Amino acid sequence: MRDFNEITAFFIKEFDAEIGRISEQQPQNLYEPILYSLKMGGKRIRPSLLIFTYNLFKSDIDKALPLAIAIEMFHNFTLLHDDIMDKSVLRRNMETVHVKYSENTAILSGDAMSILSYEYLLKTENDNLKEILALFSKTALQVCEGQQFDMDFETSDKVNVQDYLKMIGLKTAVLLAASLKLGAILANAERDTSNTLYEIGYNLGIAFQLQDDYLDTYGDTALFGKNIGGDIYSNKKTFLLIHALEYANLQQKETLNYWIGFHNPSKQEKISAITSLYNELNIKEKTLSEIDKYFNRAKELIAQLPLSPPQKNALLSIANSMMNRNN
Amino acid sequence: MRDFNEITAFFIKEFDAEIGRISEQQPQNLYEPILYSLKMGGKRIRPSLLIFTYNLFKSDIDKALPLAIAIEMFHNFTLLHDDIMDKSVLRRNMETVHVKYSENTAILSGDAMSILSYEYLLKTENDNLKEILALFSKTALQVCEGQQFDMDFETSDKVNVQDYLKMIGLKTAVLLAASLKLGAILANAERDTSNTLYEIGYNLGIAFQLQDDYLDTYGDTALFGKNIGGDIYSNKKTFLLIHALEYANLQQKETLNYWIGFHNPSKQEKISAITSLYNELNIKEKTLSEIDKYFNRAKELIAQLPLSPPQKNALLSIANSMMNRNN
Repeated sequence: MRDFNEITAFFIKEFDAEIGRISEQQPQNLYEPILYSLKMGGKRIRPSLLIFTYNLFKSDIDKALPLAIAIEMFHNFTLLHDDIMDKSVLRRNMETVHVKYSENTAILSGDAMSILSYEYLLKTENDNLKEILALFSKTALQVCEGQQFDMDFETSDKVNVQDYLKMIGLKTAVLLAASLKLGAILANAERDTSNTLYEIGYNLGIAFQLQDDYLDTYGDTALFGKNIGGDIYSNKKTFLLIHALEYANLQQKETLNYWIGFHNPSKQEKISAITSLYNELNIKEKTLSEIDKYFNRAKELIAQLPLSPPQKNALLSIANSMMNRNN
Repeated sequence: MRDFNEITAFFIKEFDAEIGRISEQQPQNLYEPILYSLKMGGKRIRPSLLIFTYNLFKSDIDKALPLAIAIEMFHNFTLLHDDIMDKSVLRRNMETVHVKYSENTAILSGDAMSILSYEYLLKTENDNLKEILALFSKTALQVCEGQQFDMDFETSDKVNVQDYLKMIGLKTAVLLAASLKLGAILANAERDTSNTLYEIGYNLGIAFQLQDDYLDTYGDTALFGKNIGGDIYSNKKTFLLIHALEYANLQQKETLNYWIGFHNPSKQEKISAITSLYNELNIKEKTLSEIDKYFNRAKELIAQLPLSPPQKNALLSIANSMMNRNN
């Protein structure tokens, strides 16, 4: 069993070599933005997880590369199109594709990336290819559904915590879950094991997204790497805000709506007012407890896997590191 | 062998039933625009051709339905995204999706349609599935490349006739070609036969697109169903304009560029001036001869197919009817 960091390094090296070939393809105006978007970087967590789970059962990790590339290609396609829809101008401190090139370029290059992800899928030589394709497509469609729910929520005042958990499940957790499961299916693992790996990824994905929401308000700026309160300032429908809107009393709701509707407020004042309200409602504790619920469920499921103790420990350690935890 | 019209009617009935199911899916804001776009109609020529070629070799045409639906779904996805990129407000006299809903909706619903087309592909039960998927994906990517070349050409002054033929080959002809070939692969036809069917579709596709260009200038309004000269007025880089730009002498080029750069000209005056110039350059005859070249090649290839005379005649009659010809 290879170390996770070693697997990530292996993937990045192979991925970079592979996408290097894209630069030669014509029309340049289609392929250059694809290369640009793929070179923005990122932790390559999904393909690394896929190769890692494959490697739990098989040693020839080269065989998992096309599928790992497909997952990363698909993920980057969704980021590219999401950036257009969210009108984001920066991603990882670089101009987004629709800003650097044009919106039309971003639409079409994204479309091509979505198709390219299937091209890589098809390079997979495996008896379970049909099952792999079916899970990949189902997941891809769920990610689109998640993005639509997310956009719907931004203009709806009737979103509850359950809706929110379902949305992040689709938008974020299923792709992580599928990455783990695809590695297992590719390695011809037992069906129960593959399904458990899916559940682990799903629970981890939810925990991870909730933690992302949590850190925006309660994170340590130095560790978190972005400014505190950005989500609060932009009225983003996070777990915290939705929880607050659901459980606030009439007066608290009025205060929340006052700040949400305030055009051009003082950033510091708004963040501090809403954070106080979150504190009144014990949102910090409630969010932490929700994160723990999902994270603990993932850990329980890891313990149940029919794997060796070192294998389970390796998986646990990946899970902890995703959540920036040491224990 | 079933009649082509019968096959189209069969497809439309089954397709409408199938897409009816989409209306029940959530989120509604994702699936309703998909349904809207699929219900805009159209001749369903690609899926009908696919089923027709399948039916040349096998009688159980039900088996070809998922693949036929996939092709039609993919084609409509490209129309949806092209309409955003081209800023088209109407399609078949209905508001385009990005106008009726929003641009974000149109991007995301299109993405989902692209993935849905793979979901239908995967419903195909066939030993040649991998080959089918590979041809479908390759073709899908070529269509994106064609759209990019098309957009590039609009802002380039160095496009020649060869570039243009390559572009319409990618944007239009390969999907028609693939429709014919996919039906044959699905029916497990001989490789040579499938390849010839591909070439027939490709040549027909080029002939069809060139004829579309031709009719915009030289068509009969009553028969053509749209106003003459729309392409001329909007400076669309058709075969005619590219041919003119390539073969015009200095003075003719000056005249062309004068009208192309004229902001808000009289529509009638511009159309008539450029048509005169086309006439001077014998563009009418050259275009007709180019159409004939591709159409005749398609007919030659049909004659070479290892099929019965009634089968070849049926295919010839479809080709003629696509080109609105009786002979």
